[in-house]
Amino acid sequence: MTKPIEVRNPRTGKYDYVIIPPPPKLLAQQCTRARRAQPRWYQLGVEGRIAALQAWKQALLSERDRLMEALVNDTGRLSISKLEIDSFFSSIDRWCGLAPDLLQESAKNTAIPFIALQQSSVPYSLVGVISPWNFPLLLSTIDAIPALLAGCAVIIKPSEIAPRFVAPLVTAINAVPELRDILSFVEGAGETGANLIDNVDLICFTGSIATGRKVAEAAAKQFIPAFLELGGKDPAIVLESANLELATSAILWGSVVNTGQSCLSIERIYVAESIFEEFYHQLIAKASRLQLAYPTVESGELGPIIAEKQAAIISDHLQDAIEKGAIIHCGGKVEALNGGWWCRPTVITQVNHSMKVMTEETFGPIMPVMPFPTVEEAVYLANDSMFGLSAAVFAGSETEALAVADQIDAGAISINDAALTAIMHEGEKNAFKFSGMGGSRMGPAALKRFMRKKACLIKTNSTSDPWWFDNS
Amino acid sequence: MTKPIEVRNPRTGKYDYVIIPPPPKLLAQQCTRARRAQPRWYQLGVEGRIAALQAWKQALLSERDRLMEALVNDTGRLSISKLEIDSFFSSIDRWCGLAPDLLQESAKNTAIPFIALQQSSVPYSLVGVISPWNFPLLLSTIDAIPALLAGCAVIIKPSEIAPRFVAPLVTAINAVPELRDILSFVEGAGETGANLIDNVDLICFTGSIATGRKVAEAAAKQFIPAFLELGGKDPAIVLESANLELATSAILWGSVVNTGQSCLSIERIYVAESIFEEFYHQLIAKASRLQLAYPTVESGELGPIIAEKQAAIISDHLQDAIEKGAIIHCGGKVEALNGGWWCRPTVITQVNHSMKVMTEETFGPIMPVMPFPTVEEAVYLANDSMFGLSAAVFAGSETEALAVADQIDAGAISINDAALTAIMHEGEKNAFKFSGMGGSRMGPAALKRFMRKKACLIKTNSTSDPWWFDNS
Repeated sequence: MTKPIEVRNPRTGKYDYVIIPPPPKLLAQQCTRARRAQPRWYQLGVEGRIAALQAWKQALLSERDRLMEALVNDTGRLSISKLEIDSFFSSIDRWCGLAPDLLQESAKNTAIPFIALQQSSVPYSLVGVISPWNFPLLLSTIDAIPALLAGCAVIIKPSEIAPRFVAPLVTAINAVPELRDILSFVEGAGETGANLIDNVDLICFTGSIATGRKVAEAAAKQFIPAFLELGGKDPAIVLESANLELATSAILWGSVVNTGQSCLSIERIYVAESIFEEFYHQLIAKASRLQLAYPTVESGELGPIIAEKQAAIISDHLQDAIEKGAIIHCGGKVEALNGGWWCRPTVITQVNHSMKVMTEETFGPIMPVMPFPTVEEAVYLANDSMFGLSAAVFAGSETEALAVADQIDAGAISINDAALTAIMHEGEKNAFKFSGMGGSRMGPAALKRFMRKKACLIKTNSTSDPWWFDNS
Repeated sequence: MTKPIEVRNPRTGKYDYVIIPPPPKLLAQQCTRARRAQPRWYQLGVEGRIAALQAWKQALLSERDRLMEALVNDTGRLSISKLEIDSFFSSIDRWCGLAPDLLQESAKNTAIPFIALQQSSVPYSLVGVISPWNFPLLLSTIDAIPALLAGCAVIIKPSEIAPRFVAPLVTAINAVPELRDILSFVEGAGETGANLIDNVDLICFTGSIATGRKVAEAAAKQFIPAFLELGGKDPAIVLESANLELATSAILWGSVVNTGQSCLSIERIYVAESIFEEFYHQLIAKASRLQLAYPTVESGELGPIIAEKQAAIISDHLQDAIEKGAIIHCGGKVEALNGGWWCRPTVITQVNHSMKVMTEETFGPIMPVMPFPTVEEAVYLANDSMFGLSAAVFAGSETEALAVADQIDAGAISINDAALTAIMHEGEKNAFKFSGMGGSRMGPAALKRFMRKKACLIKTNSTSDPWWFDNS
C-alpha cells in the first residue's frame, strides 16, 4: 500500500532504519480514535491531565537510555541530545506547574447591569504537530505538552529524517492508560503530513518556509488555525561599546551550537567598524579551538550535518560567497568523512547582501561578519531580510542595546547574549515577517492557543422583556 | 482601465449610484502611502491616537445627517441605520476608554535570575478590512477602530452592494490631518478585495464562507494573519421551563431584526415538545403584528432585502422547505414591491435537517420551529451544523440554561435572551467550526490581535561568560 521510507544515519551515511507511513485510511482512523477519546481526557480536569503527564514522565525515565541512543542515532550528536532530553523533562514540569493558573477562568464584569458574563475556554479536539529533524524530541513536544494540558488530543508527525526517538516515547505512552489514544505518533514524510492536516482541528508546524506555506494554505482551506514557526536568518549587532570577550563567545556559541542547525542560530554578524578587525580575529581564534565530534560522538563539540540535503545548501552558500569575493578565515567547506557530512566553524569576511550566506537560511556553523559605519546602517542591514525570528544586540549598556533592539523587526531580541529564548520561556513573542504565523509558542499564550474562547451572556433581570425593548 | 460598478437601491431596484474601483497600481500606491505614514501614527502614542479619533468623531457629528441619508439609501431601513450610527459613535468612545490600559506593558519576572524580560507589542503596519453589506457602517469599523488605536494604518473595502456611507466618513477623515493616509477606503468588488490582501500585513474579513475561504488562502500564501467572521445558523433552544412570553419576544426579535440580515440572527428554533404548540402559536401572533417598512422608510419594522442575490437564496430555502413538507404559518414568500424585494416574518413548522432552511444560512426573517423530545436531542440538533457562531438558550433557571449552553459548540451563547453580543462587548469569543477563524473580535483580545508580541531578553549579570557556560 504505502512505500516504506529508509532513514539515513547522519554519522555513517547508511540507511539503517525504516519507517512505514500509514495508508490515509488508517491515519484517519487514528485521528477519529483520538477525537473520540478527547472528551474523557478533557473531563479529567487539569489535575488529572497533569497526573497523566507526570506518569508519562516517570515511564520515560525508564526509557531514558533507549531514548538517548535513538536520539544520538537520529542526530549524530551527544551533548545536545542530552540537553534535549533534560529540556524535554523540565518542560513537562514547567507546563504542569503553570497550567492550573492558566486554565483558571476569572469572572468578568460587564458594562451592562442586567447582563452577566461567564467566560470559558474550550480546547480544540485534535491538534496535529509536524516537527523537524534538528531538535527531534524538543520540537515535536514543544507544542504537544501545552496542548495536552489544555485538554486537546495530539498526534505528532516527526520528521522522516530523524524518527528513531519515537519508539521509546510510544513505549512510555503505552504505560499510561489515560494517554493511549490521546497522544500518538504517525510516521511518514510530506504526504503523511498533508493527510494529517486534513484530519485535525489545529496544526502546529515547525520547518521551512516553502513547506510552511503549503501547511498554511491547506489549513486555510479547512478553516483550521495554523501555528507556523519557520526559518530565521538571525542577525547579531555588535556595537562599539560591547564587551568583545563576551560578544565573541556568545556569538560563536549562538552560531555553531548543534552545528548551526537551529532556527534561532546567529547567521549574520554586523560589527562596528572600529572594532571589526579585533572582533573577527578573536572569533577566528575561538572558532578554531572547536573540534568535530569525530571519529566518535564523544570526540568534540560539532556533530555531523543531520540532513543530507542541508549539506548541499551549506556548500552552495559557501561557494556563492567565495565566487562573489568573500574571504574564508577558517572552516569553509563541507567535508565527507566516512559517510557523514561535516562542517567546521567557519568565519567569513568581505561579505555583502548580494550573497546567499547573508540572505538565505544556511543552517550551518557559518559566521559571516560585516562591518557597519553607523548604528542606523546596522539596523538597516539587520532588517534587510525576509526573516524576523530573533536577533541579538551587544552593547556596553542595556539602554544603548535596547534602543537598537527596539528598531529590529523580530520577535525575540537577546541583549548581551545569544539565543536566550532557548532557556527563558516566559517571554511572549511572535515570529515576524516570513519567519512564522500565529500566536506565541512561548509564555502563557502558548497554552491558550489551543483553546477557543466561549462567552455565556446571561440576562439577569427578571422582566420578561428582551433587552432591545430597553433600547428602542 | 477599471470598470465602474453600478449600485442598486434596495427600495427602488434602481441603479442610482456608481463606484469606480481603482486600478491595482493605484491601490498599491494608496497602501504604500498608508504604510509610510504608519510609524508617525504609532509614535503619536495612544493618547495622540485617541485625540485623533475623537476629532474624527467630532467631524462626523457634522456629517451625521449625510451619513444617515447614505446609510438609509444603502440599506433601505431607518431605525437600524440610526442604531448603527449610535453604536458606531459609542464604539469609538468605548475603545478610546479601553485602549490606554490595554496598551500598558507590564514588567514580567523570569525564572532565571540573570535574565530580565522586557515585553512589548508592535502593531502590524497596515491592516486591511473587507466588510459586508448588512451593517455597512458597523462592520466596516468594528475591526478598524481597535486597529487604529493599536497603532496600525487601516484601509477598508466596504461591500460594493452598500458603499454610499463611505463619502461622509471620508469628508470627516479629511478634517483630521493625523488621520489622512492612515485611515482610508477603497471601493470595489471581489477583485479589489483580492488586490487589497496582496498589499496589507493583516486582513479582517466579514462575509460568506465561500469568500472567506478565498481570503484565508490568499492570506496564507502571504503569511499574513486573517481574521474571519463568517456565516452562522444560530440555534435557539427553548426548554420546558422557559418563560414563553420572553422566549417568543426575544426569538422573534433575534430572527427578524434587520430583516434577518445579521450573522448572529436566530435561524433555527428547537422547542420542548410539551410547549411546542403554545410556543409557535404565540410566535405567529407576535410575528403577524410586525409590518414592512413600506411604502415609506417610516412605515414599519422590516426593511427590504438589501442584496438582490439574497432574495433568491431566501426564496430557494422556502421553496425547498415547502417541497419537503414544511408548513408555512405566516409570511412565507419573497415579494416584489415597486422594485424592491421584501419578506414578512415567516414561521415554519414540520421542518427537519434535510431542509436548507435548517442547515444553510438563510439571512432572512425566517423562523423554522422544531420540537424536541429530550434535552440531549436538542443539543444534538443544535450542534448538527457546519456553523458555530452563536446560540441562545431559554430556561427557567440560569443553572439549567448554562448546563445546556456548555454543550453547544459555539462561541457566544445568550441565556434567556437573543443576540446579547450585539450590546455586550466584553466577552471574548471565537467563531467555532466554519463560522470563522482567528482571534476574538470582542473583549480585550480584539485590540491585541493587531499587535505582535516582542520579547527583549537581557543578560543582567556582569560576567563575560554567555549563559551556556553556566549550563554545560
